[in-house]
Amino acid sequence: MEGEQGTGDEAQEELHKETRAKLVPVKLEPFNAEAPLEALTHPRTPTDSFFVRSNYAEPELPTATHRITVEGAVEAPLTLRLKDLARGPLREVTATVECAGNGRTAMSPLPEGEPWDKGALSTAVWRGVPLAEVLGRARLRPNVLEILVEGADGEGSKRFARALPVSKAMHPDTLLALEMNGEPLPRAHGAPMRLIVPGWYGMASVKWVKRIEALTRPFSGYYQRERYIYDLSNGRAPEPVTRMRVKSLILTPSEGARVAPGRVVVHGIAWSGERRVVQVEVAVDGGETWKPATLLEKPKPSAWVRWAFTWEDAKPGRHTLRARATDEAGETQPETSQWNRLGYGNNAVMARVVNVG
Amino acid sequence: MEGEQGTGDEAQEELHKETRAKLVPVKLEPFNAEAPLEALTHPRTPTDSFFVRSNYAEPELPTATHRITVEGAVEAPLTLRLKDLARGPLREVTATVECAGNGRTAMSPLPEGEPWDKGALSTAVWRGVPLAEVLGRARLRPNVLEILVEGADGEGSKRFARALPVSKAMHPDTLLALEMNGEPLPRAHGAPMRLIVPGWYGMASVKWVKRIEALTRPFSGYYQRERYIYDLSNGRAPEPVTRMRVKSLILTPSEGARVAPGRVVVHGIAWSGERRVVQVEVAVDGGETWKPATLLEKPKPSAWVRWAFTWEDAKPGRHTLRARATDEAGETQPETSQWNRLGYGNNAVMARVVNVG
Repeated sequence: MEGEQGTGDEAQEELHKETRAKLVPVKLEPFNAEAPLEALTHPRTPTDSFFVRSNYAEPELPTATHRITVEGAVEAPLTLRLKDLARGPLREVTATVECAGNGRTAMSPLPEGEPWDKGALSTAVWRGVPLAEVLGRARLRPNVLEILVEGADGEGSKRFARALPVSKAMHPDTLLALEMNGEPLPRAHGAPMRLIVPGWYGMASVKWVKRIEALTRPFSGYYQRERYIYDLSNGRAPEPVTRMRVKSLILTPSEGARVAPGRVVVHGIAWSGERRVVQVEVAVDGGETWKPATLLEKPKPSAWVRWAFTWEDAKPGRHTLRARATDEAGETQPETSQWNRLGYGNNAVMARVVNVG
Repeated sequence: MEGEQGTGDEAQEELHKETRAKLVPVKLEPFNAEAPLEALTHPRTPTDSFFVRSNYAEPELPTATHRITVEGAVEAPLTLRLKDLARGPLREVTATVECAGNGRTAMSPLPEGEPWDKGALSTAVWRGVPLAEVLGRARLRPNVLEILVEGADGEGSKRFARALPVSKAMHPDTLLALEMNGEPLPRAHGAPMRLIVPGWYGMASVKWVKRIEALTRPFSGYYQRERYIYDLSNGRAPEPVTRMRVKSLILTPSEGARVAPGRVVVHGIAWSGERRVVQVEVAVDGGETWKPATLLEKPKPSAWVRWAFTWEDAKPGRHTLRARATDEAGETQPETSQWNRLGYGNNAVMARVVNVG
């Protein structure tokens, strides 16, 4: 572990270039890019195809000497370097991360914000120390309500920081991750260490972690109260964005693709926060005839499941395909997602237009 | 005129093939196809690129001997052949025809019906006899409410037939058209004669006209009461679909196009039923900053107007462009169009995703 990290900051430069080459750029400064949809056909997204969401320029933190502090309502404040964390105990979690704004361009009226289409979504194997281990060492005071995790990106009141309820912060799968897909984290993904909050939209998985604070009062920072909230513009107090809503995506045939008549195999993925997906159904031509797809692996919490559907006897002409997922709690994708001012959490059923013949 | 029509049914076969080659098929039987969007950059759509909407197989009517009857509440019932109509007086009208279901695939929940995207829309120069001339010869009784126009397509109670209020039927621009863009009508577009109702959605412009009947009571046929209605599924009686709603379309850059940074010229079209479009505005990146586009010709009623907008200083990355049109009555495109069960009249502002750099 130390040996791998010891390749140092030149290796980070190399990784930095690699992580940009295969992506679909949305914004260049700061760099934001979607995963190419074809990369999502893998059970795990290759690191160089994993989507990138950054609110600010990527901090270049020194791999060996960067420290994080653990402070606030704790008995034993800590300072930790990468090598301290690397001692473990280490845990591995496969988790899908979706940007809360994924699908924003399909919302109407179009909300402001980065124009994410479908690819602000990826899955990786994360390896790191459970946040609960670190908090355990620091010994939380009994009146702790939330755990604030602050990144090294942004400044002053706009520094990127998010708080988690203690229950989620203490979940054994919530990690201070050091590795992604078996390699040190690249800079774009939060090197040298980032939070991974499985099942929650990406904003919770704070990158470039710098400071952890145990809070006895709810956090009210910019990224907690002004962004990543469901603001329905109806006079009610906005709700915070938390877990990923149940959703599915058709990967092939791709949008507007031309396929031969007859039997067409439709492939896709489906996910639902910390919950297992239990069913995916497909409808052809906008009707209400939903037929079950086959799940290609045993569904796990917090990671997408791949599915396939055999469309028998596709006739020449244009057709619409729709997929909808249902999770173990019985939640099903809606036909239309509730509009909100900042365009988060769009999990509506999508229509895929395909040309046969 | 007679000479042109006299080329006969072999010529129709040739035209038949031509009208299918350049289109974007939506359904093969009966043949339904969109205009390729690049063809919409012309002030008038070339006939071989004009969208085709048919509810049934195209009737093959004999050019020289086909007759239409004019009957019902008239003093002098008539039978007319093409050569009778060709004597005139003939009138020429440039009219945009949009299918009422155009844009259906962008509605959510996805309504049933043909999956029309953006190209069920075209403009042609139509030449024919004003319907008012024919009705004048037949002498309408004073208690006539509606003029029923029946096509030769479909059978029994599902024969394609639509009724117009007398006021619209008698409008001098409502034509029994014999020619399209200076040539005899091709079969796909209603040969040997079709109705053209400028400013109304396409269902009113009945093809392969066979029978005209003056009615003293409202028509309640299938295509008048069961289809081409705005059914809001809210318990209220559906409203009939009539005039085309104010709408605009960005033609270039095309969806997902990659363009160079700097100055980008955006081109499009806008239309609004019988009304003139008076303004088109463009917004960049989902904001509420709408800037005026330039209309490229003097707007006319019933035909689209082309427009251009110069997007200054486009920066590398992904951007959204939106256009919205306003007509002389002050109607502006809505951000979201009212959903209806059959998916008609979608004139919502569309977001065009463009990649710069």
